[in-house]
Amino acid sequence: MNRVYNFSAGPAILPEEVLKQAADEMLNYKNSGMSVMEMSHRSKEYEAIINGAEATLREIMEIPDNYKVLFLQGGASLQFAMIPMNLMKNKCADYINTGMWSKKAISEAKKFGTVNVIATSDDKNFTYIPDVDELSYNANADYVYFTHNNTIFGTKFTKIPKTNGIPLVSDLSSSILSEKINVSDYGVIFAGAQKNIGPAGVTVVIIREDLITDETLAGTPTMLKFKTHSDEGSMFNTPPTYGIYIAGLVFEWIKKNGGLEAMEKVNKEKAALLYDYLDSSEMFSGTANTADRSLMNVPFVSTSEDLDAKFIKEAKAAGFVNLKGHRSVGGMRASIYNAMPVQGVQALVDFMKEFEKNNK
Amino acid sequence: MNRVYNFSAGPAILPEEVLKQAADEMLNYKNSGMSVMEMSHRSKEYEAIINGAEATLREIMEIPDNYKVLFLQGGASLQFAMIPMNLMKNKCADYINTGMWSKKAISEAKKFGTVNVIATSDDKNFTYIPDVDELSYNANADYVYFTHNNTIFGTKFTKIPKTNGIPLVSDLSSSILSEKINVSDYGVIFAGAQKNIGPAGVTVVIIREDLITDETLAGTPTMLKFKTHSDEGSMFNTPPTYGIYIAGLVFEWIKKNGGLEAMEKVNKEKAALLYDYLDSSEMFSGTANTADRSLMNVPFVSTSEDLDAKFIKEAKAAGFVNLKGHRSVGGMRASIYNAMPVQGVQALVDFMKEFEKNNK
Repeated sequence: MNRVYNFSAGPAILPEEVLKQAADEMLNYKNSGMSVMEMSHRSKEYEAIINGAEATLREIMEIPDNYKVLFLQGGASLQFAMIPMNLMKNKCADYINTGMWSKKAISEAKKFGTVNVIATSDDKNFTYIPDVDELSYNANADYVYFTHNNTIFGTKFTKIPKTNGIPLVSDLSSSILSEKINVSDYGVIFAGAQKNIGPAGVTVVIIREDLITDETLAGTPTMLKFKTHSDEGSMFNTPPTYGIYIAGLVFEWIKKNGGLEAMEKVNKEKAALLYDYLDSSEMFSGTANTADRSLMNVPFVSTSEDLDAKFIKEAKAAGFVNLKGHRSVGGMRASIYNAMPVQGVQALVDFMKEFEKNNK
Repeated sequence: MNRVYNFSAGPAILPEEVLKQAADEMLNYKNSGMSVMEMSHRSKEYEAIINGAEATLREIMEIPDNYKVLFLQGGASLQFAMIPMNLMKNKCADYINTGMWSKKAISEAKKFGTVNVIATSDDKNFTYIPDVDELSYNANADYVYFTHNNTIFGTKFTKIPKTNGIPLVSDLSSSILSEKINVSDYGVIFAGAQKNIGPAGVTVVIIREDLITDETLAGTPTMLKFKTHSDEGSMFNTPPTYGIYIAGLVFEWIKKNGGLEAMEKVNKEKAALLYDYLDSSEMFSGTANTADRSLMNVPFVSTSEDLDAKFIKEAKAAGFVNLKGHRSVGGMRASIYNAMPVQGVQALVDFMKEFEKNNK
C-alpha cells in the first residue's frame, strides 16, 4: 500500500522527505555510530542538532534577537497554565474566546487570577472571529490572549489585536509556519509541534526576553518557569531530543522550499482550491464565516449526516483519511498543513466532485 | 562506520532491533499509509499502539490491576513537583537523600510543604545507601520518597524501606525494567523513558488508584494532576505519540528476550564482568560502596585525572563512547542498560585491561 493523503488535524502529515531522512539516519546519524534517540543531550552532536534547529527556526520566522526560543514539553495545554503562572503579575488578563482551545485556556487561567473575556464568538458556535478593532482592553491586564487559528472551527485572525503595549500572547499551534507573521507584534507565541513543526511531544515557545522573570506566581513548579528553561537553553533537564531533531529537519525543509513566503503562497493556493469548490458546490459547504476562514483547517458539511458518513467512508477507501469533522462541528474537516501537497488537495476536490455527481 | 558501544547515562543505547523496526515502519506503519508520527492520537491505529504498550508493560512488570499506568511528559523533573502537588494532603513528606536527583526532588517538594530528610549519604559524597532498617518515619508523612538507583553516583537500594502503610514513592528512571521489582511495595513509581524505556520525552508513572484524587494542592495546573491523565487514559491532550510507540517496541523486545527475569540475569552478568575487573585492577577502581553498587551505572576512576582523560580519549577512538563521568564524581562512568549486550561490556573490559597493561 502506498502513502495516503492524510488530512488529520494533528498529529498530522509530515514531509515525506523528512521521514525518509529520519529512516535513513535511524541507526547511525552522520557517522556517529548511534541513533539521535540514543544521544546524550549534552553531547556535541546533539548540541549541534538543537542549536541548528533553533537557528533555522529563527531564520525562517525572522525572530528578533530579543526573543528566546524554547523547546518544551506538555503541549499547548501546559502553556495554558504556564502563561498565567509566569505573566500574571497583576493577576489579571484579557482573553478572546474563539473556540474550544481558547475556552480551555480561559478556564485554566481563572485558577490564577481574574480573566476578562473581552470578546467571544460563542453566540454563533465560533464560526467567526470578533472584530479586533472594536476591542477595549483592561488597563491593568498583564496580557491579551487569543488563539491565532482555531483548529476545530476553521477560523483564523486575519488582523491581530492592537493592544497599546500590553503583551500579546497567542496560541499558534495550528498556524505557525503556515504564513509570514511579524514576531515583534507578540509577547509570547507558543505552538504544539504536531501540526506544522514535527512530532507530538515538543512545544515551541517564542518569548520576548523582558517577559522572562523570576517573579512567577507562588507555588509555580521549577519546570513551569520560563526562566528555568531560558537560562539553560532548553536543557534544564533532558529535552524531547528526537522530536526536536525531526522539527529541525522540517525547518530545513521549509527553508529549502522557499521559506514562509513560499509556504504561504502554496497554502493560499491549496485553500482556494478547496474553498472555491465548496462555494460552487450544491452538496458541500464550508461552515466558517468566509472572511475568517482558516488556511489550515477547512470544516465543511454535506446536505445530511448520512451523506457525510457515506462521503467519509468512501473517501477513506480511496486513500483520503482522517476527514471526519470534530464532534462540536460535525461533518468533515480537511486539515491541509504545509506538508500536504497541492496535488493532495486537488485530488480531494476531484474526488468530492465525483462524489457529488454520483450522489445527486 | 559501524555502530559504537554507547555507555551514555541517558538518553542511552536502544536495542538495534527496535531501531531497525522503527526505520522500516517510518513511512508506512503496518499498511496504514502513514508514519506513526503522522497518526491522529485518536485513531484506531494509534489506540492499538498505546494500549498495546501499556498491556506489554503491565505484563512484563506484573503490574496489579489496582495500579494505573500513565504516559506523561516533562521527565522526572516534572514529577518532583507533581508528586507533592498531588500527594501532600498533610503538607508533609519524608525523603531519603542519596544524590543529585533526590536533592532536586527535595528542593522542589519544599515549595509545597514540610520535607523531612530522614536519611542522607551526603557525608560521603553519596557513595553509599543509608541503612533502610534504621529509618523512622513521621507519623503524618503523606509519603516516603527515595531514588531507587542513583545514575550519577552508581548506587542503588538493594532493600526498600518498610513504611508501615505510608505510601512509598520512588524515582526508578535509571533502574526500571532492569530487574524484577514488586510493584505492590510502592504507591507511585515514575521513570523518565530515556534509559531503559525509550526516547526522551516520555515519563512513565505507575500509581496506585487510591492515590489518584481530585484533592490536589490549590493552584495545581490541570496538566499536573494525575487524575486528569488517569481519567483520559493518558489522552487528555496529545501524548508524545512516537516516543510511546518506541517504548512499546522496547517492551516487546524485553518480553521476547525473556522478560525482567532474563534482563536481571544478564544485567547481573554484565555488572559482575565490570566490577570483578575493577576489583582486581591496579589502575581502575569503582567509586561506590561495594554493597550498594548499581547494576546500571558504574562510576570508576583511574589513578589520576590525566590518565582518566587519556583513557576516555583512547576509548572513544576505539568505539566506546560517552564514558566520561559526571562532574560531581569525576573519572569515568559506564552505563550498561538493558540494550547494552554482554559482548559490549566484555569488549570494554578487554580494552581496559589492554590500556592498563600499556600504561603501567
